[in-house]
Amino acid sequence: MLGNFTYCNPTKLYFGQGALDGLKNELPKYGKNVLLVYGGGSIKKNGIYDKVVQILKECKKEIFEDAGVMPNPTTEKLAEGCERAKRAKADLILAVGGGSVCDYAKALSVSVNCEEDPWEKYYIRFEEPTCKLIPVGCVLTMVGTGSEMNGGAVITNHAQKLKIGHVFGEEVFPKFSVLDPEFTFTLPRYQMVAGIFDIMSHLLEQYFSGTDDNTSDYIAEGLLRSLIRSAQIAAENPTDYEARSNIMWTATWALNTLVAMGKTTDWEVHMIGQAVGAHTDATHGMTLAAVSLPYYRHILPYGLAKFKRYAVNVWSVDPKGKTDTEVAEAGLAAMEDWMKKLGLVMNLTELGATRDMIDGMVKSTLIMTGGYKVLTEEEVRQILTESF
Amino acid sequence: MLGNFTYCNPTKLYFGQGALDGLKNELPKYGKNVLLVYGGGSIKKNGIYDKVVQILKECKKEIFEDAGVMPNPTTEKLAEGCERAKRAKADLILAVGGGSVCDYAKALSVSVNCEEDPWEKYYIRFEEPTCKLIPVGCVLTMVGTGSEMNGGAVITNHAQKLKIGHVFGEEVFPKFSVLDPEFTFTLPRYQMVAGIFDIMSHLLEQYFSGTDDNTSDYIAEGLLRSLIRSAQIAAENPTDYEARSNIMWTATWALNTLVAMGKTTDWEVHMIGQAVGAHTDATHGMTLAAVSLPYYRHILPYGLAKFKRYAVNVWSVDPKGKTDTEVAEAGLAAMEDWMKKLGLVMNLTELGATRDMIDGMVKSTLIMTGGYKVLTEEEVRQILTESF
Repeated sequence: MLGNFTYCNPTKLYFGQGALDGLKNELPKYGKNVLLVYGGGSIKKNGIYDKVVQILKECKKEIFEDAGVMPNPTTEKLAEGCERAKRAKADLILAVGGGSVCDYAKALSVSVNCEEDPWEKYYIRFEEPTCKLIPVGCVLTMVGTGSEMNGGAVITNHAQKLKIGHVFGEEVFPKFSVLDPEFTFTLPRYQMVAGIFDIMSHLLEQYFSGTDDNTSDYIAEGLLRSLIRSAQIAAENPTDYEARSNIMWTATWALNTLVAMGKTTDWEVHMIGQAVGAHTDATHGMTLAAVSLPYYRHILPYGLAKFKRYAVNVWSVDPKGKTDTEVAEAGLAAMEDWMKKLGLVMNLTELGATRDMIDGMVKSTLIMTGGYKVLTEEEVRQILTESF
Repeated sequence: MLGNFTYCNPTKLYFGQGALDGLKNELPKYGKNVLLVYGGGSIKKNGIYDKVVQILKECKKEIFEDAGVMPNPTTEKLAEGCERAKRAKADLILAVGGGSVCDYAKALSVSVNCEEDPWEKYYIRFEEPTCKLIPVGCVLTMVGTGSEMNGGAVITNHAQKLKIGHVFGEEVFPKFSVLDPEFTFTLPRYQMVAGIFDIMSHLLEQYFSGTDDNTSDYIAEGLLRSLIRSAQIAAENPTDYEARSNIMWTATWALNTLVAMGKTTDWEVHMIGQAVGAHTDATHGMTLAAVSLPYYRHILPYGLAKFKRYAVNVWSVDPKGKTDTEVAEAGLAAMEDWMKKLGLVMNLTELGATRDMIDGMVKSTLIMTGGYKVLTEEEVRQILTESF
């Protein structure tokens, strides 16, 4: 059943070829000072930077830059961005990039006018913003995180060796996001397939939890089927617009709160994957890929009915003449086959991990309680060992 | 592929048991004068009226009433409502009822301060509102139309024998809606199953169009599967909370624009069904039920691949050893079986129609161009004849 919830997602999305023109509708709604936030500069090579700047100028905006946002944005970078935003008297933060850049822009939004240390307030005490927010808009160049239509903002504190995500309320969601699938064409294949698995993992983390019948799981199944099909096509031809547009749209809906409405969720794969990331600095989506199957095979007996349903409804496994366990295992086998064909990393060795890191990874793994089995430390160790 | 689009749906939803308490969060955002809009008074019998009024009083609101909204709200009623809203200096229109009441509230929202005849401006010339809008909130007591989270507002002009829907932009969407599945428990079974088929029809109208591969169709398949399952349970036990909550949530997402994003749509079943309604005054969902299978069987050869996909993905038809046409037909046969078990009206005779009405119904049927076959007048006649 659907538990009680509130749902609100006010982000306006401009989707498709030429979607960047949507900026011309949005920019006039804000004051003239725009803080343009981006990462390592790939947007300068692929021409997106020039296009954005041209529209900002057309709309008579004063442009202030905050470049160099790293894949895991840090508290130091956030402090620097706050200074830049204050000096610029920013009326709008425009993020151009992937999930990290969008996350960082939202963290900036709630931090610029914050009268205390934002890390302490939002990431240690998990309080909600009480200061004046600076509105955020996004131009997405990489898909996977759903950050373009949610309130998530992950920040890393190196001094404290902590990487924490705060999921803010709808007042922090981007006011608008531009989603042009062609902007993702130049992404290296490794990043593309890692992003695809991140999307799949978001859906599965929310799907593999609970035993009730609720609409959210059916929507997730639809999104999974679309993702599986389009991923296969994109892996063969990364500039297939149909496939890339479906992947982009699926990514948004995989993590904009819809498929979690009224149900419990797991997120243990992300916890193990992030522990791997903390010890290897490997690409996020690949860490999830390396640990997912060992984890799901481990918890399968505890969530058998759902794994059977996953096999039949998502992977079209024919249940005739098979035991429930055989059906469920056939679903995971089909998933493994699909993952290998995509070229995903299927073990921790390929991510640069070594077995002597296992102890540390176990210690870094947060235990969640929404999945089919609350793991013991020994089980986390076993799953990590099976991921080599 | 996903065509270009913009998406924005800012309505805040309070869903579940006790969702009415959400009013206490929302009401303080508006001025003190509330126009309470409702229908024939069933909300006074089932206690919802008293609950709403109590919260309005707790929130120190001045309550003005606009009751008697009919199943097909008229231009006369709209004019009366505008007068009431003006006299009340309404700061908020609170609709308590089903789709008609929500539709009417939105029509009021754009009409109260309209300086010309709203019928002419919005329903004949299809212009967008330029006047100050009055915000709308909804408390849903009947599911099916999705009006609680979209911009649709159908109004009937009896003098001109026209019933027209205007789909307004997001500024006219309800600011908030309260969805408590228990509020739908007292609905008579006939209305419940008619509403369920209306939801299914909304999904199918958007699904049976186009030959490309897009995520929206996969989401629709998920919603259809959830609806099919929960409808069967609700038909046996109308107070099964799990089933009714899933039906309510599916109804919202079936017609809040999501499953139409980036794709073409049909809506011919609604056109034929509305023509039947104009000549019989039969319940909307039942008119759709009576004409759907003859229509879909007629267009099946033109959209064979999609009907096959529908059979396999939605009705779990096993395609092995069957021709494409056999698979597609087996899907519609499964749908027919499900409809009969629900107790839906399967022919026009039961709706009070007679064969001498066919000519008039043909004339009243608008021909749409997004489906798999643009119908000729002769084909509409044939489908209507087969619906007896």
